[in-house]
Amino acid sequence: MTQETPRNSPAECLSRIRVVLSHTSHPGNIGSTARAMKTMGINKLYLINPKEFPSDTATALASNADDVLNTATVVGSMEEALAGTTLQIALTARRRELAHPLQTPRQLAPEIIQTIQAGHDIALVFGTEMSGLTIDEVLLCNRMATIPTNPDYSSLNLAQAVQVFAYEIFATLADDVSYLAESRDSATHDAMEHFFTHLEETLSTIGFLKPDAPKRLMPRMRRMFTRANLEREEVDILRGWLRATTSTERWPKPPQ
Amino acid sequence: MTQETPRNSPAECLSRIRVVLSHTSHPGNIGSTARAMKTMGINKLYLINPKEFPSDTATALASNADDVLNTATVVGSMEEALAGTTLQIALTARRRELAHPLQTPRQLAPEIIQTIQAGHDIALVFGTEMSGLTIDEVLLCNRMATIPTNPDYSSLNLAQAVQVFAYEIFATLADDVSYLAESRDSATHDAMEHFFTHLEETLSTIGFLKPDAPKRLMPRMRRMFTRANLEREEVDILRGWLRATTSTERWPKPPQ
Repeated sequence: MTQETPRNSPAECLSRIRVVLSHTSHPGNIGSTARAMKTMGINKLYLINPKEFPSDTATALASNADDVLNTATVVGSMEEALAGTTLQIALTARRRELAHPLQTPRQLAPEIIQTIQAGHDIALVFGTEMSGLTIDEVLLCNRMATIPTNPDYSSLNLAQAVQVFAYEIFATLADDVSYLAESRDSATHDAMEHFFTHLEETLSTIGFLKPDAPKRLMPRMRRMFTRANLEREEVDILRGWLRATTSTERWPKPPQ
Repeated sequence: MTQETPRNSPAECLSRIRVVLSHTSHPGNIGSTARAMKTMGINKLYLINPKEFPSDTATALASNADDVLNTATVVGSMEEALAGTTLQIALTARRRELAHPLQTPRQLAPEIIQTIQAGHDIALVFGTEMSGLTIDEVLLCNRMATIPTNPDYSSLNLAQAVQVFAYEIFATLADDVSYLAESRDSATHDAMEHFFTHLEETLSTIGFLKPDAPKRLMPRMRRMFTRANLEREEVDILRGWLRATTSTERWPKPPQ
């Protein structure tokens, strides 16, 4: 009741997630699933009575995610695969009788994040390629999910379904690619103001900004260049352009 | 300026999206991409100088999404592929110099939805399998996106990347699987109140609810059964169970 719920790192949180594949027919799908999992930082794979595993086909399709295959746990029953988890999410692509209300990965994401951040284990449970999970398997889970798709063509294969669900969790946990982004050297407020002053002078000099015309040009320029979110170097380039514009003999020198 | 922006149906909105593949090497990836697109209701495919197309391999991997391949537009340049679009999103998996700020599909989704709902066309642009888009290709687009992944293993293949981006748009537009859900016959408020009364009587009768004990049992029962969001039939079943509990000679008859 008074248990602490420390906020764990994304990697620690993701280590609380296991992907459970029941009675998978094609080893290639196990390999593609391992790859899909690893791209989203999930490494724990449970296989219930796979038809063929280990398998060279699985390893080939896992690309460099063979560590996920090497550490996979092969079990003989759904009960063993789900032991220790507090949230078990059965994935289904079709209308099911009985069982739980149907939710989407996006609807379930907040509860999943809350659970793994509190340090509890969860399972994403997928059935065989052809017919999915049995009713008995679904009843061993406490949640039921479907990925929203085109109603006329819902044929996500196993690895695509794992990819989408894992992405949904990963993006909810850490929708951040800033480590890939260039660091920006944004222009300061005063650099922008100097630029706008310079721009206004130049547009007056060349007669494009007319003293008697409505004062709408400069506010529009300001909006446009503000929206462009300029970098310091870009402001320097623009001001060089302005200087070049008025550097010919044709224009009078702007006030210094 | 005074243009109306009618709210179009999800299908109309999705028809505004084109997936552009530049210089794809393996026809199988074109087929898998068509399948990924169609599961998320996107049908317009543009191919810039594909190495091999049409192709039997592409058709095989498209599963039943061969209509997407049959209506694909093959063009000779990025300019042709992007003509008519107002938003062009370049997908990249690596750190890029120059170009635009890096955004995620989730960050871009609101702008995408707004654009397609206003009836404008947009392009999701993917480069070759090995090296992605060139700098020149990225500069022809006005947005740049990366799918967030495990920093140590970001090897999403082409079709997986298309799948994830298309899912993000589809789920933002219509995160709804209600057409697959069983229609629920939820218990009414009065049925629940009759059940709680019946439960309290029964628990008193069997001596589990003690008159002198703290009154915490019934509120907990109430919370628990309320959370279960019972259906009408389930309430009937529970009341049958309560009746059976007190039906033996051992317990006095509850007040009628």
